[in-house]
Amino acid sequence: MDVKLFLEKERRLVDRALSARLPQKGDCPETLRRAMAYAVMSGGKRIRPILARAACVAVGGKAAWADAPACAVEMIHAYSLVHDDLPCMDDDALRRGKPTCHVKFGEANALLAGDALLTLAFGVLSEWKKNESAKSLAIGWLAEAAGMNGMVGGQVLDLAGTTRSANLAGLRSVHSRKTGALIAASARLGALAGGGSRSQIARLFEYGKNLGFLFQIVDDILDGDGCVKILGIEAAKKLASKTASRAKRQLHSLGNRAGHLSRLTDYVLNRSS
Amino acid sequence: MDVKLFLEKERRLVDRALSARLPQKGDCPETLRRAMAYAVMSGGKRIRPILARAACVAVGGKAAWADAPACAVEMIHAYSLVHDDLPCMDDDALRRGKPTCHVKFGEANALLAGDALLTLAFGVLSEWKKNESAKSLAIGWLAEAAGMNGMVGGQVLDLAGTTRSANLAGLRSVHSRKTGALIAASARLGALAGGGSRSQIARLFEYGKNLGFLFQIVDDILDGDGCVKILGIEAAKKLASKTASRAKRQLHSLGNRAGHLSRLTDYVLNRSS
Repeated sequence: MDVKLFLEKERRLVDRALSARLPQKGDCPETLRRAMAYAVMSGGKRIRPILARAACVAVGGKAAWADAPACAVEMIHAYSLVHDDLPCMDDDALRRGKPTCHVKFGEANALLAGDALLTLAFGVLSEWKKNESAKSLAIGWLAEAAGMNGMVGGQVLDLAGTTRSANLAGLRSVHSRKTGALIAASARLGALAGGGSRSQIARLFEYGKNLGFLFQIVDDILDGDGCVKILGIEAAKKLASKTASRAKRQLHSLGNRAGHLSRLTDYVLNRSS
Repeated sequence: MDVKLFLEKERRLVDRALSARLPQKGDCPETLRRAMAYAVMSGGKRIRPILARAACVAVGGKAAWADAPACAVEMIHAYSLVHDDLPCMDDDALRRGKPTCHVKFGEANALLAGDALLTLAFGVLSEWKKNESAKSLAIGWLAEAAGMNGMVGGQVLDLAGTTRSANLAGLRSVHSRKTGALIAASARLGALAGGGSRSQIARLFEYGKNLGFLFQIVDDILDGDGCVKILGIEAAKKLASKTASRAKRQLHSLGNRAGHLSRLTDYVLNRSS
């Protein structure tokens, strides 16, 4: 299947799964419900949940088995954007061409909508129809990826200016936390959802780490920032294609079932926005 | 044992359990570690974790069995205070006589420390040495109490001015979410930790709801606010003692083991700060 068609179809399925797990009218105060929906249902690329679903398929599961962790990860991603956009952080008024959550609902409501989404992510996992021991692994992995030594830790380092270090290892250590950890967790959780063996889960986690790094290098290439400033554009492009190969190497033993992941890797490598 | 001595001893044990579960040096970026510790280890009353431990004892467990959920609940409470104090919310510069977290570490770091504490609360529960099905119940209950129709939902209603309604039912519906839900969850989680039966857990949950309401009435009596404005001081005092009796009624069938909870109820009823 053409990768664009595949991604469009996946996005629709992910959006449906997210809508079903967000609060419905009457489940909570209406302003909060609207702010949470606004933050989540505003047209992201859905890379993380699609990755979770594809990793689930790669170990022999059905994509929908991964819907609970896929939605949990996307809610974490969405909350992090809402908090990132706040005046005390990046102070952004627009995201994807639309007013940011705090511009639309006020700062306090945006802050609280972010808090509610982060909380709901764990609530969604606790309600996952899955054996209890996998559930509690998943919750631990998500907390690890999203928390103090994962995404939030990366944001703190980024704030402190560690990203402006002129050294690739320093840059990578920030990005592996700030964006990489949640992308890697998506693959890991998807493989768990699909009933993968320990070694398959470990391999897909490694795949996810490489994909997360690839994502960042390509961002830097598109923005002329970060590793492009350190390495120059040509070396950055080489690093991107080397990282894509490294990611794909983890897929070999999984055979055809990993086809979606392979296409997703190419998409991330070749994306132009 | 005298209730003050009991509470002091409990506070020391809770503080030790919290310290052990907060990040240690090297576990995450140092600024974040310090901001998280500052938010949690700054001398609160520890009502919620003490309540969880006492509910655990009330169903025949050892208090320490409840340490993981007790710490998780206290981390949620601490994060909510950090976010509440931010300029876009209550804009408070002092808490318990000390500079608030954002005054000390900057707004962005305080925001992120709150996010990290909320995430860590679920991480702590995922690592709880407890059977998996109790763990996943606990995680669901905590998410419910802390999230969109619990604490965060109550904050949104409070922001929208619903608290200023001149009607006791309206006021109670905000407070049952904003402060009541997490207090009630503490008792519920403690009873679960102690291996209580379904009906014991339900009874202690009901106890916790009454204790949460009592806590709020006494706050209002001390501040001359909320239900005192609606009912007048005398009726508010009567409501407090009636609510304390209602709470204690849930304890009858538990016998002497519920002694700590009974003393805790009296403490909340008679506290003067």
